[in-house]
Amino acid sequence: MHHHASPSAAPVVPLRGPRRGIGPDDMRLSGGFWGRLQETNAHATLRHCLEWMERLGWIANFDRVADGDTGGPRPGWQFSDSELYKLVEALAWEYGRTGEAWANETLEALTGRIAAAQDDDGYLNTCFGHGGQAGRYTDLSSGHELYCTGHLLQAAVARVRTVGEDKLVDVARRAADHVCREFGPEGRQGVCGHPEIELGLAELGRALGEARYTEQAGRFVERRGRGTLEPVALLDSSYFQDDLPVREAEVWRGHAVRALYLAAGAVDVAVDTGDDELLGAVRRQWDRSVERRTYLTGGMGSRHQDEGFGEDWELPPDRAYCETCAGIASVMVSWRLHLATGEVRYADLMERTFYNVIAASPGEDGRAFFYANPLHQRTAAADVRPGEVNPRAEGGVRAPWFDVSCCPTNLARTLASWQAYAASVEGDTLSLLQYASGEVRAALAGGELALRVATGYPYDGAVRIEVVDAPPRSGLRLRVPHWAHGATLSDGSGDRGVEPGWAEVRGPLEPGSVITLDLPVHPRLTWPDERIDAVRGCVAVERGPLVLCAESVDLPPGLSLDELRLDTARAPRAEADGAAVWVSSAPAGPGAPGGLPYRPAAPPGGPAPARHEVRLVPYHRWARRGGSAMRVFLPTV
Amino acid sequence: MHHHASPSAAPVVPLRGPRRGIGPDDMRLSGGFWGRLQETNAHATLRHCLEWMERLGWIANFDRVADGDTGGPRPGWQFSDSELYKLVEALAWEYGRTGEAWANETLEALTGRIAAAQDDDGYLNTCFGHGGQAGRYTDLSSGHELYCTGHLLQAAVARVRTVGEDKLVDVARRAADHVCREFGPEGRQGVCGHPEIELGLAELGRALGEARYTEQAGRFVERRGRGTLEPVALLDSSYFQDDLPVREAEVWRGHAVRALYLAAGAVDVAVDTGDDELLGAVRRQWDRSVERRTYLTGGMGSRHQDEGFGEDWELPPDRAYCETCAGIASVMVSWRLHLATGEVRYADLMERTFYNVIAASPGEDGRAFFYANPLHQRTAAADVRPGEVNPRAEGGVRAPWFDVSCCPTNLARTLASWQAYAASVEGDTLSLLQYASGEVRAALAGGELALRVATGYPYDGAVRIEVVDAPPRSGLRLRVPHWAHGATLSDGSGDRGVEPGWAEVRGPLEPGSVITLDLPVHPRLTWPDERIDAVRGCVAVERGPLVLCAESVDLPPGLSLDELRLDTARAPRAEADGAAVWVSSAPAGPGAPGGLPYRPAAPPGGPAPARHEVRLVPYHRWARRGGSAMRVFLPTV
Repeated sequence: MHHHASPSAAPVVPLRGPRRGIGPDDMRLSGGFWGRLQETNAHATLRHCLEWMERLGWIANFDRVADGDTGGPRPGWQFSDSELYKLVEALAWEYGRTGEAWANETLEALTGRIAAAQDDDGYLNTCFGHGGQAGRYTDLSSGHELYCTGHLLQAAVARVRTVGEDKLVDVARRAADHVCREFGPEGRQGVCGHPEIELGLAELGRALGEARYTEQAGRFVERRGRGTLEPVALLDSSYFQDDLPVREAEVWRGHAVRALYLAAGAVDVAVDTGDDELLGAVRRQWDRSVERRTYLTGGMGSRHQDEGFGEDWELPPDRAYCETCAGIASVMVSWRLHLATGEVRYADLMERTFYNVIAASPGEDGRAFFYANPLHQRTAAADVRPGEVNPRAEGGVRAPWFDVSCCPTNLARTLASWQAYAASVEGDTLSLLQYASGEVRAALAGGELALRVATGYPYDGAVRIEVVDAPPRSGLRLRVPHWAHGATLSDGSGDRGVEPGWAEVRGPLEPGSVITLDLPVHPRLTWPDERIDAVRGCVAVERGPLVLCAESVDLPPGLSLDELRLDTARAPRAEADGAAVWVSSAPAGPGAPGGLPYRPAAPPGGPAPARHEVRLVPYHRWARRGGSAMRVFLPTV
Repeated sequence: MHHHASPSAAPVVPLRGPRRGIGPDDMRLSGGFWGRLQETNAHATLRHCLEWMERLGWIANFDRVADGDTGGPRPGWQFSDSELYKLVEALAWEYGRTGEAWANETLEALTGRIAAAQDDDGYLNTCFGHGGQAGRYTDLSSGHELYCTGHLLQAAVARVRTVGEDKLVDVARRAADHVCREFGPEGRQGVCGHPEIELGLAELGRALGEARYTEQAGRFVERRGRGTLEPVALLDSSYFQDDLPVREAEVWRGHAVRALYLAAGAVDVAVDTGDDELLGAVRRQWDRSVERRTYLTGGMGSRHQDEGFGEDWELPPDRAYCETCAGIASVMVSWRLHLATGEVRYADLMERTFYNVIAASPGEDGRAFFYANPLHQRTAAADVRPGEVNPRAEGGVRAPWFDVSCCPTNLARTLASWQAYAASVEGDTLSLLQYASGEVRAALAGGELALRVATGYPYDGAVRIEVVDAPPRSGLRLRVPHWAHGATLSDGSGDRGVEPGWAEVRGPLEPGSVITLDLPVHPRLTWPDERIDAVRGCVAVERGPLVLCAESVDLPPGLSLDELRLDTARAPRAEADGAAVWVSSAPAGPGAPGGLPYRPAAPPGGPAPARHEVRLVPYHRWARRGGSAMRVFLPTV
């Protein structure tokens, strides 16, 4: 039996405002870039995550709590419960999307094991609060208890929105009630070192119509930034955003995933409570952080030390952290801001991040993942042995699993619900935000608008949209990406150029009518702001939404990536899946043998260097042909 | 009574080879750059370190072991014992240098408390092995027991070489014997996560004529790099150089202080055992690491994450770690290599590191210190409150003490013995390596050579050397720094130009004869190798051995450090203690409000920017006028 999700079954459903997303089965992808990623996720990644967590005993941790057998050593970090919850969330979206029996059965089996570990009062955590363990909430800075609970609530939200209330939702409700009692106005006045409970509570509150949950989410948002958290090791309180109240901060700082989950939760609270000041604070932080602390790929996080944002303009390509989870969290924030404001630029950043962070993480088989996503790899990384847990992804190699393994399951839940971010609805107008082949059916004010989209995007910029069904007075808007200067639209009113922003489709939408959007995806040069010291004198190549990169495996023998100098005066040649450009190979500076690499004279001009043709490939595909040195920003001649 | 150290009382005394250093009272500084630093160290820093360690209970940890009272919480990290030993070493050198009673009395009082904590079998550590503590050597990766012992042995070496055998030396001998038994051929086949025991044992073996200690040092050197250490948290085994045997490694990697202490110990072992292969390995590592992994300041360590070296050419100025202790350790390695080979370039790097890392650390009052020494500070750091322990020095502000407080005591022992690195002796020739006002008396093959040096170096390049006393057939060599093109020497044979390297003084050395070396210290531009991505398009300004920098406190109102563009076509003007250069203020790129800092077009040339005169100051003095943004490398126009 094929289950159909309810019409409002979206990952985020604000209680206020005119816009909403579409549900997980309102769009069906048919192949193409995202369709293939989603299929691989469905048929490889979900099982892969399940297998690893069974093998490592992270799921058995729940059984041990249920059996009262918690005295011995416990595998996994304090936050390993959250990985199971993210997998359960992914399974919920997957079942909502496809109705596939395995996803539902697996979810129900896991729910049984999770439920069995829940204490009578609703507390649910396998690392604290039982025999031989530290007491509940004795380590709010590092214990991650509320963080794990937040992910449980998000999983339950996926279930409510695709199936309705079931045992998982009951478990989540009891856990949320426990949190409200424990941390309510009369309870502990603390927050969790890792934000997440905020958006879990806010979304569950929306899904179940429980205003108490939203209120508690708001309490956590407001309590933050008051220095209540004990500093962790050598990091200061900005690490977990406890340095400044959310509504006072100007920019994101500290641990990137924490900062972004907190921002997402703050938007949920702000929207549902009509708190424009709080919403404005997050919008201001987005503006400043995107302008000064964001990589060309959309990646966020400049430092390995604290997995965190750096200062303004501190964007080193080689030590870029750009954690996959931070990319996902950035999408979560931008999506909420798009729904809250209707502004197109939030969807622009989502596209950049989808193609150049999120799509870069999984390997072709869906069983290995990037954790960090640097823009420059100096030396080719060694392969990870199959079955080996990578202690920490330093970048350069996709690994099957990590000691801290937040990214694979985060990716799984995101890919399983990707289509829900591809369009939004406002009254009788559908806005197409992301382009992918498939069918869209969206309930508008006047009835259901059904479209069939066919495109080779992002490799081909032509997007063909056929109207299958349309209610009277329905409208259609298409996002023209910010880079797509020279785009053209063909609709019932003829052909015309359209500017970046929104392109409104003119003429009545009728079954059979065809709209074509043509986006220019030829290779283009992109220059960094001069204040980004780390890439001064360099340029990047982009193509449509794709950031390109040079990989050492594509270089002629004897040529090093460090010697490449891009000749920006020459036109690049486009290939079907990448761009070929002329580069000049300038011999690197002579250096000083046995001495310091600093010279008393400027580098000599020297004779005209040899010229080579070097192929630049989409960044998201890098290191798929074995370990490789790589760079996105190339020095100019 | 003024005690005089023995003639061979140097910090490092190789058993083989023709060269040796001079003893701590063979040179007496009289004011000047290093004389003043040494006086501040003697009268402020030594007491400051003592006061802080008493206040924090790090010294009382020894009393608690002596009293059998180790059940309660113990202040300080596992390695806090080593800070006391480094202070004791500093006191030993200070007493050897000056004979000041306070230094000796304090040393003896501390020795009594240390000795009382030693177990009957020689084991000595306040963190392990007693009631309520973890067992001895149960955590070789992180426990730092042998590291602490190594510093105890170095302190004892300072005592042997300045006073002779005393209670401290007896304690050290018993500790060393314990280590030889415990980790000998039949004992534990482990190494310490933090190298240091190697050079402690080797130097104590030299000082006491105990070949067993040198053999044990060699055993530790050879055991390393075989993967016996349990990885720490998320770092791999290169963090503590356990990835490759010392004699196989091509370059320094991992934690910089660890890598350099290990290298220093390996040189000691190689020299004393005539192991040219091992010596060659460290020389090779020096070559490669100096060429590709060293900052303009001489600083080493490109990453905060592991306080470690980065990859080749990974030398970000903003996130440079350049720990003060790594600068000290680099000097220790280069000094040993100079003694082993006689090559001048090792002394060149020492000078660079002395002036731009070591001299940068202490504040003017000798009671606050830099821990990290970045070459670019983006935003002015907030002041540290007096009496406040800094959790970790991120750079930008000197702090009175740190949670991990290795740098202040390391600095104290280095400054107390600085003059011993200023000259070396080979047969009947004295080589002057560092220039400072004062008197030198060195025992040569044929008798004592006595010189009086007068100079305003490094601000003035004239060095006047008067011969006070000289045996027949004595020789004098002067180091001409690698940057000193155009230097001139005036001696008994007249005036002549001398090239970087060694300048041999000609003519007989007789009482009253005067030699003058003139080193050009006008401001000069220095360009980085093109492979250092992080400073592409930038230039630095140096003056003599001093690296200069621009500080925000010197800028005209409204001008940001990020907007400075150095006009390299203009000649700089020299000032008495800094250089004034013309810079053009180019408005920074327009950016894209609300958008990403990446543009589809190269930055416009625009109108001729306003010109400002900006003063560049010696790097070692930065942040002395309050928190300041700072940069060493400046973009060119």
